[in-house]
Amino acid sequence: MKNNYDIIIVGGGPAGMAAGIYASRAGRSVLIIESDVIGGQASESYEIENYPGFENIAGPDLMKKMFEQTKKLGVEFLYSMVTDILPGKEQISVICLKEMITCKRVILAMGTQSRKLNLPNEKSYIGKGISYCAYCDGNFFKDKVVAVVGGGNTAFEDVTYLSKIAKHIYLIHRNDTFKADDILYDEVEELAKEKIVDIFTNTTIVDIKGNEVIDTITIKTNDKAQDLKVDGVFVAIGRKPFDQILKGIELDQFGFIKVNEEMQTNISNVYAAGDITSKKIKQIVTACSDGAVAGIYASKIKY
Amino acid sequence: MKNNYDIIIVGGGPAGMAAGIYASRAGRSVLIIESDVIGGQASESYEIENYPGFENIAGPDLMKKMFEQTKKLGVEFLYSMVTDILPGKEQISVICLKEMITCKRVILAMGTQSRKLNLPNEKSYIGKGISYCAYCDGNFFKDKVVAVVGGGNTAFEDVTYLSKIAKHIYLIHRNDTFKADDILYDEVEELAKEKIVDIFTNTTIVDIKGNEVIDTITIKTNDKAQDLKVDGVFVAIGRKPFDQILKGIELDQFGFIKVNEEMQTNISNVYAAGDITSKKIKQIVTACSDGAVAGIYASKIKY
Repeated sequence: MKNNYDIIIVGGGPAGMAAGIYASRAGRSVLIIESDVIGGQASESYEIENYPGFENIAGPDLMKKMFEQTKKLGVEFLYSMVTDILPGKEQISVICLKEMITCKRVILAMGTQSRKLNLPNEKSYIGKGISYCAYCDGNFFKDKVVAVVGGGNTAFEDVTYLSKIAKHIYLIHRNDTFKADDILYDEVEELAKEKIVDIFTNTTIVDIKGNEVIDTITIKTNDKAQDLKVDGVFVAIGRKPFDQILKGIELDQFGFIKVNEEMQTNISNVYAAGDITSKKIKQIVTACSDGAVAGIYASKIKY
Repeated sequence: MKNNYDIIIVGGGPAGMAAGIYASRAGRSVLIIESDVIGGQASESYEIENYPGFENIAGPDLMKKMFEQTKKLGVEFLYSMVTDILPGKEQISVICLKEMITCKRVILAMGTQSRKLNLPNEKSYIGKGISYCAYCDGNFFKDKVVAVVGGGNTAFEDVTYLSKIAKHIYLIHRNDTFKADDILYDEVEELAKEKIVDIFTNTTIVDIKGNEVIDTITIKTNDKAQDLKVDGVFVAIGRKPFDQILKGIELDQFGFIKVNEEMQTNISNVYAAGDITSKKIKQIVTACSDGAVAGIYASKIKY
């Protein structure tokens, strides 16, 4: 590893790797710094059938392919945690746990984390009934019964989306009022009238049961518990961006980084790509696209 | 084939197929209409190494994978030419050569064509030295000598991009003035001072020679011909969108379709995705991303 690069990319998920592919092919020296698993959240996907080019592939397998491709094109990888980024006039200093590395441009691609239900056995059902993304996994629940947890736009959009796929949907929300937009609310109310959706307010999931896959959830409404037979649970209680490591970077109201069409942030020579940005649709292919655009623009103009 | 679909997608390239993948998984009935080869312009790519997930794949092979995936998810294909689209209140009528099909929403994904030099043997050198996309193919010309043809922003961006990869670049332009932005012009002028770029104005390529691959071009400057040894020719004289088939659709000054963040055009229930839209970066992965976004939004809200 050198200690000076043209471009440092923070985060080795789809956005970061796509940025690396494009920047490296543009003749730039590129380092990707990842603190956890290569592939980020995409590595948690049990089965992917909506990334164009692969009929069906496990998340870790797709990420391994991107990793090999990125390495082959000359991108270097460092496993460390970035704790601070200090933009300067001539160069940017990227402070990691054990080292400081300098570069001309930074691309932030740290992604997001979905908020969890925090049930003890939740993690063991990921890919076995628990999903944090209806667009990603909804299609695996054709004519099945699913629960959607949440009360905001995402939860309501998920219910509408899943209503074209699943047989029946339980919408479970811990409060008695919803935060979703009226137009989304009206749709779900209509689905409730048609008996496609049952809405439970003041309700939380207190247990998940099943053998290989989920078959039952226990919900609690104002202290009254009951079991519901379900094949899947879509958790839509929000996503949080990873902690910001760059002071003064402009965020939207939810904490995601604002970028322009060239993926530039408000800080010069700092770009952002993928789920950490404020775009609404967060899919592997959209993250890759963001990364490609960031990689192209970060490589442009002499420096 | 039915004659009524939720969504009709015009164009079976990466954008159209990605839209199909997402719309079909959202439970919509989808028909893709393609008039030429599946995969569109991407099928002309000899070798692709910047589509995340594939280290190296031929364009037609990647497009075949997407085609199989799209079909498997239930999307139907029709080989025909769309001659007219008539939006109505309840439904949209899509007029093809032999049939009329109705739908609720249309996604336009017809792509673009790159303008050609119109030399008799030009086509035979595609993938063998002739390229219409520096970002796509530049990396195959490491330390080689290449020519860039054109005088606008794309040609100048290509020269700067290729200057980090190739050994030497000839910029060939038929007029004596350039249309590129000042900042791009200044960069190329600097590269010319450094003897990395030679600029030929009032010059056209009149012949391409080589065996397996290009080795020589003949250029003509004010009637004086000379031969230049080159390994590649990047043609950057513009792209043209396919003819519009929808009256009243809003275009930018270059004839590309304007869309908002949800890929909606100004005509209700009509979306557009991929190279036919006015976005600057036109890559397979960005087209796929556009398609995914269009597919998701065109599938939203009850209809």
